[in-house]
Amino acid sequence: MPPTITFLSDYGVADEFVGVCHAVIARICPTAKVIDISHGVPRHDPRAGALILRDALPFAPAGVHLAIVDPDVGAQRRAVALELPDDQVLVGPDNGLLSLAAERLGGALAAVEISRSPWRLEPVSATFHGRDIFAPVAARIAAGEALADAGEPMDPNSLVTIELPTPERAGDGLVATAVAVDRFGNVRLNVDHGQLAGTGLRMGRTVEIEVDGRTRRAHYALTFSDVGDGELLLYEDATRTLALAINRGHAARRLGVELDDELRLRPA
Amino acid sequence: MPPTITFLSDYGVADEFVGVCHAVIARICPTAKVIDISHGVPRHDPRAGALILRDALPFAPAGVHLAIVDPDVGAQRRAVALELPDDQVLVGPDNGLLSLAAERLGGALAAVEISRSPWRLEPVSATFHGRDIFAPVAARIAAGEALADAGEPMDPNSLVTIELPTPERAGDGLVATAVAVDRFGNVRLNVDHGQLAGTGLRMGRTVEIEVDGRTRRAHYALTFSDVGDGELLLYEDATRTLALAINRGHAARRLGVELDDELRLRPA
Amino acid sequence: MPPTITFLSDYGVADEFVGVCHAVIARICPTAKVIDISHGVPRHDPRAGALILRDALPFAPAGVHLAIVDPDVGAQRRAVALELPDDQVLVGPDNGLLSLAAERLGGALAAVEISRSPWRLEPVSATFHGRDIFAPVAARIAAGEALADAGEPMDPNSLVTIELPTPERAGDGLVATAVAVDRFGNVRLNVDHGQLAGTGLRMGRTVEIEVDGRTRRAHYALTFSDVGDGELLLYEDATRTLALAINRGHAARRLGVELDDELRLRPA
Repeated sequence: MPPTITFLSDYGVADEFVGVCHAVIARICPTAKVIDISHGVPRHDPRAGALILRDALPFAPAGVHLAIVDPDVGAQRRAVALELPDDQVLVGPDNGLLSLAAERLGGALAAVEISRSPWRLEPVSATFHGRDIFAPVAARIAAGEALADAGEPMDPNSLVTIELPTPERAGDGLVATAVAVDRFGNVRLNVDHGQLAGTGLRMGRTVEIEVDGRTRRAHYALTFSDVGDGELLLYEDATRTLALAINRGHAARRLGVELDDELRLRPA
Repeated sequence: MPPTITFLSDYGVADEFVGVCHAVIARICPTAKVIDISHGVPRHDPRAGALILRDALPFAPAGVHLAIVDPDVGAQRRAVALELPDDQVLVGPDNGLLSLAAERLGGALAAVEISRSPWRLEPVSATFHGRDIFAPVAARIAAGEALADAGEPMDPNSLVTIELPTPERAGDGLVATAVAVDRFGNVRLNVDHGQLAGTGLRMGRTVEIEVDGRTRRAHYALTFSDVGDGELLLYEDATRTLALAINRGHAARRLGVELDDELRLRPA
Repeated sequence: MPPTITFLSDYGVADEFVGVCHAVIARICPTAKVIDISHGVPRHDPRAGALILRDALPFAPAGVHLAIVDPDVGAQRRAVALELPDDQVLVGPDNGLLSLAAERLGGALAAVEISRSPWRLEPVSATFHGRDIFAPVAARIAAGEALADAGEPMDPNSLVTIELPTPERAGDGLVATAVAVDRFGNVRLNVDHGQLAGTGLRMGRTVEIEVDGRTRRAHYALTFSDVGDGELLLYEDATRTLALAINRGHAARRLGVELDDELRLRPA
């Protein structure tokens, strides 16, 4: 079984950043299979990347997971490699990007600071640590080298973490926050399946959604085709998280919802 | 030779949908080589996907071909795996997406309904059957499991098919339909090489093209550089299908052509 | 170690052109590992592609490097395969696209004209030589066939080359040219590390930048986070080339800089 490296970033696919990281990995560990999770993470948004990583990695083979959303590249933030249970390793900047996935996969057993890793490519640039530090470290670990040799040991409890807003109960409804918007305009809320217990929000019913002082009605449905074209629906997305969409439309644009906006949900 | 899976969808590359499917495949069949044909199929347009698939698969290695353009995910449409001659297998929704490629590759020898496949990932989401049904089934077949074990047998003659509009003769010209527009703005017509026989449309000549009541002249050329920058040309594209382009320009935008628009072509 | 093929083009990822080339390669050389450097090269801009290729290939494994930015496809331009030192091979159109990388990697030892290669796929289309000529030739060479068998020998000295503008000294500053803009809006200048020697431009100082008659001040910094959000900086990018950026902003748009614009840089 070839070693695998998953790779997530905000580099986009228009430029060569992702390709150069693939090239670096292939030189160091030619047998590695690299799985691109996404390179479309909103630029400079570690929280968005952290959510994607948390939800995607449980579907990936065990191995090395490289993630780069790094607005402070070249500054004082630490670069880290984390050992998790079941032969999982996370590599990336220590800005919270890795924190939600680390927690989901069982928590960091050990952490190494890799900013001055002996494996980095010299001269290290100030702006492209993906090429010079993160990809080489990921590739060396995939090739079987010991995580401990990647840099200096550090305390896993000192890692930067991301706090997600929690939904608040309001009567038999919830005040939720928009935590992500995908390219189809579907708006993901900070409400998972379990957090609906005890509310009056039930699949099959109508829900009132108040955004920015304006109230609309949505059908709480199983899937898109349960409503007509252009109609608003509330549904549990593929990660069992509550989301808002318009069948064959762009909900975020139509409702004027932006990241971190609050939405009030109540049974109609 | 590693088993290969080609993969086409309308998921786009901005989000993680494609990456998660790759991850699922790699867990089930680590040796599979996945070839991304395109993930930029116009959203919710199975016909556009069907055309791309039909023209691309003859260039691909024999193997499993996974295709997902699935506006009715979670509703009653069937999910299918099709056995074709020469060890080709198609996996995707039964909405016509697979039909043109199936026909081109020799027709379905057997079909299996996979909505309740024993291989699906539980819990199956209502919105992401790529991850939960289609990718696992494609990966299992690539790994050598028997197609018949993927689900329930069904009659291949009951598969949904896509009917393409056919061009109509009009004098010594044709009434054609715009069936696709690529990112360069090139407009693909529903006219293949053979359908030009008997018309007065000949390479090297000038053609009058009437769109929406307005007539323009185009050079029927071999390739783009046969006309000046910004000039309109008619040509046979790489699939021997008639197409309309502007050298170093965007024909669809300039001519105001949209999908399914009719164009009248006649010798000038 | 699997044979590797790097692949760069201006095909974009919205359409199926890249995927079809991958398919063609996989049929001919199933064991090849294909590394996509970038398919977002500005359309029809061989110079932009040449710069990316020159800077990316030193990070890639030795092997075959396929590059297609080919505005004159189907016309008289030659198609070539070049043998370089250290088992490196370049394949692409002879329009300068390969020239900067060829020089960086040690210069062409031999060149073969492949327009009528015995390895091309028949019928050769007039518009998609990536599929019909370049990918098959790259794949055959990766599979171990001899470069000399790819077509007709030609004189490497007759290859088309790209001349980059050189920066001009002006007092203790420079007149530079914008040679690329990435998707973040960072503007790359035609000034490399060595060309700063003898000027008054020094890291840590303020630099006046005159574009189109308007002068702004930028901090000559090590990295983005050395300046505040929205502030202009001059820095050496990851290829040690001078570039202009706005921290968390889009410099090209804000300054109104386009490709080939001249910028005057002087110490403040």
